[in-house]
Amino acid sequence: MTDFSQSDTLVLDLNNRVLHVTLNRPEARNAMSLAMVAELSAVFSQIEQDPGIRAVVLRGTGGHFCAGGDINDMASARSQQPIEGEPDPLYRLNRAFGEMIQQVNQSSKVVIVILEGSVMGGGFGLACVSDVAIAGPTVRFSLPETSLGVIPAQIAPFVVERIGLTQTRRLALLGLRFDGAQACQLGLVHQFCDSEDSLTEALQAAIGHLQRCAPNATAATKALLHRVGHEPMGTLLDDAAKQFAQAIRSDEGAEGTLAFVQKRLTRWAETDNPEPFAPGKGH
Amino acid sequence: MTDFSQSDTLVLDLNNRVLHVTLNRPEARNAMSLAMVAELSAVFSQIEQDPGIRAVVLRGTGGHFCAGGDINDMASARSQQPIEGEPDPLYRLNRAFGEMIQQVNQSSKVVIVILEGSVMGGGFGLACVSDVAIAGPTVRFSLPETSLGVIPAQIAPFVVERIGLTQTRRLALLGLRFDGAQACQLGLVHQFCDSEDSLTEALQAAIGHLQRCAPNATAATKALLHRVGHEPMGTLLDDAAKQFAQAIRSDEGAEGTLAFVQKRLTRWAETDNPEPFAPGKGH
Amino acid sequence: MTDFSQSDTLVLDLNNRVLHVTLNRPEARNAMSLAMVAELSAVFSQIEQDPGIRAVVLRGTGGHFCAGGDINDMASARSQQPIEGEPDPLYRLNRAFGEMIQQVNQSSKVVIVILEGSVMGGGFGLACVSDVAIAGPTVRFSLPETSLGVIPAQIAPFVVERIGLTQTRRLALLGLRFDGAQACQLGLVHQFCDSEDSLTEALQAAIGHLQRCAPNATAATKALLHRVGHEPMGTLLDDAAKQFAQAIRSDEGAEGTLAFVQKRLTRWAETDNPEPFAPGKGH
Repeated sequence: MTDFSQSDTLVLDLNNRVLHVTLNRPEARNAMSLAMVAELSAVFSQIEQDPGIRAVVLRGTGGHFCAGGDINDMASARSQQPIEGEPDPLYRLNRAFGEMIQQVNQSSKVVIVILEGSVMGGGFGLACVSDVAIAGPTVRFSLPETSLGVIPAQIAPFVVERIGLTQTRRLALLGLRFDGAQACQLGLVHQFCDSEDSLTEALQAAIGHLQRCAPNATAATKALLHRVGHEPMGTLLDDAAKQFAQAIRSDEGAEGTLAFVQKRLTRWAETDNPEPFAPGKGH
Repeated sequence: MTDFSQSDTLVLDLNNRVLHVTLNRPEARNAMSLAMVAELSAVFSQIEQDPGIRAVVLRGTGGHFCAGGDINDMASARSQQPIEGEPDPLYRLNRAFGEMIQQVNQSSKVVIVILEGSVMGGGFGLACVSDVAIAGPTVRFSLPETSLGVIPAQIAPFVVERIGLTQTRRLALLGLRFDGAQACQLGLVHQFCDSEDSLTEALQAAIGHLQRCAPNATAATKALLHRVGHEPMGTLLDDAAKQFAQAIRSDEGAEGTLAFVQKRLTRWAETDNPEPFAPGKGH
Repeated sequence: MTDFSQSDTLVLDLNNRVLHVTLNRPEARNAMSLAMVAELSAVFSQIEQDPGIRAVVLRGTGGHFCAGGDINDMASARSQQPIEGEPDPLYRLNRAFGEMIQQVNQSSKVVIVILEGSVMGGGFGLACVSDVAIAGPTVRFSLPETSLGVIPAQIAPFVVERIGLTQTRRLALLGLRFDGAQACQLGLVHQFCDSEDSLTEALQAAIGHLQRCAPNATAATKALLHRVGHEPMGTLLDDAAKQFAQAIRSDEGAEGTLAFVQKRLTRWAETDNPEPFAPGKGH
């Protein structure tokens, strides 16, 4: 089991194979500091090889998801003049955030975000790489960068991937703010809940659904989805068919077929199972 | 005229230049057997060069569109151990379905699907490559693969092409089921009809619209649409402009212009015309 | 200041750093003639280097946006037989329109379209490359090309970029007509206004928003958005991080940060400022 006790900016809680990660800088509406970026990256690295974890639920403490980049880190990087031949400290600050976002996007685990209060800048970017995005009643999204004379460099590209160029160009070029109902209409989030209770229910339902899906098959499917549009469809489908054959002949495929015939829950779906079903790949 | 009398798994009916193809394995909710895949592929190959056919309407018998892959074919392929140096029979089974889907996607004819009852697995994939998708009141979509320990290998990539990564990652990774209204909101289908009558009307309206469009111009346009995003926009538009010039100087372009000036129906739009207007390309 | 007095087919009005361009061929429902294409292209070339202009508002006179290509230009090009070894005059006519559309798409200025009455053919294409598309109560969209025996060669690719393949294949292959509410649902336009007053309000709001965003940061962001999907995400984000660092260290970045701390409007947001804030790039 991974040790999650050393985090300064995150609260971590592993419950029934789901890791709950709470951004925990309430004094700064959970602004994304360099430390938080590093800790989020470390968490996603650690869980990647941990078959005991199925999913990550990301949310923020104090009623906000994340209000963007940390102002102190930004001021500090700005005060350091770039040295000839070395990357600007502002470049490194910005790119580190983007690398973490790319890592979350590609995580083999199912990533759920619960969005409340401020979802700005980097928080907006993080929301855009989730598998399931559920917005609560208080949520407010914005891309304020250009109004401050800067650019949403590591965020806007993920907004385009999330909701397409057509909607992104308007949101980003006008620096708009919008609420959860609009975010749902834009396809930025999957569900908008107008109460705390319905938010909790939606999260429980999502967790219930993912627990019924086989761990390795889910990870293989997620990796497959990310490849579409980045390589020719024919070669992608050739490779996918090989993975299909392997999946059928794996422990998961055998268990899934048997459970179907026996009309019972699969082992991976038994949420009270103390030792989770986690076969190696290809067996 | 193509001979369509030899099919075991399909019922074929050519009516006014529209080929109605009904998946016909009601005992298995029209599950996609190897035989059905082969026959669908043969039909689409045959009609490709047949100027007397404008469109294909795909639907299922017995109240269902298609409940996915055939269990017997799957069990048979699974029971055959793969031979060293040869593709796994499960690979061949899976890939054959994907090749048929690619063929339907690229068909030069207008492909309309009428979706009722179960639209699962392979049926879901087939729905994703249609030009016009109309859902009836009983329709239920699902991607159950991962809950059975397998992956929607030849399906999920077409779902991403159909509705984008953002919605697909949630649907596929949670193995969700959903109805026609949701499918319409997701952009998976174009129309959701809440009664049999409105379903019939929507189909007739779609057929009426496509009959007014010129056969060669429609085929050229469809081919053009499929190229967007797969090559640089500049070279695509250069080639498209050449096709534009050819179309204007073709028999279709002459007939379209003349009919417009004479305020009459074009010859291709005369649905009772026994000999359809079907000029060769480039004349 | 650019001189805009020489246009035959356009009415130009520069007001508070926003250039209002009105297509002005009311006798032809503002059909896109070769002259209009050339003049639009010249306007977008001229303003590209003019830091005094933030945005372009495109609309049509006489209650229509643009009813498509000009019939006289088309007939003239058609009557000229192509000369061996030279491009067909129809090719040149068609491609010239497409080149203008590409130029508008890539403009560093914010492009707003106000869509009323007929938005057909080339007008439809022009609408598809805007950053903000606002539809009025009378708007009617259509892609009638295939019903006339021709293909929407320079238009359909931009429709696919705008709303995706799934919706475009139905609209283009059935030659459909639709209204502003449907256009908004399809994501073709961002806002549908059911009255003249709300249309005017929506335009004023959009202009108000864009005036608060920094000119160079907005241009850099727009260029960034256009690159997504056309190059690997990692290299795009590397380059974006460099631009981020430059933006922070630029006059705009300094002014934005200072104004934020001082809780005042930035200089670029002062709309009555006679000399607009327009620093050179990279300073």
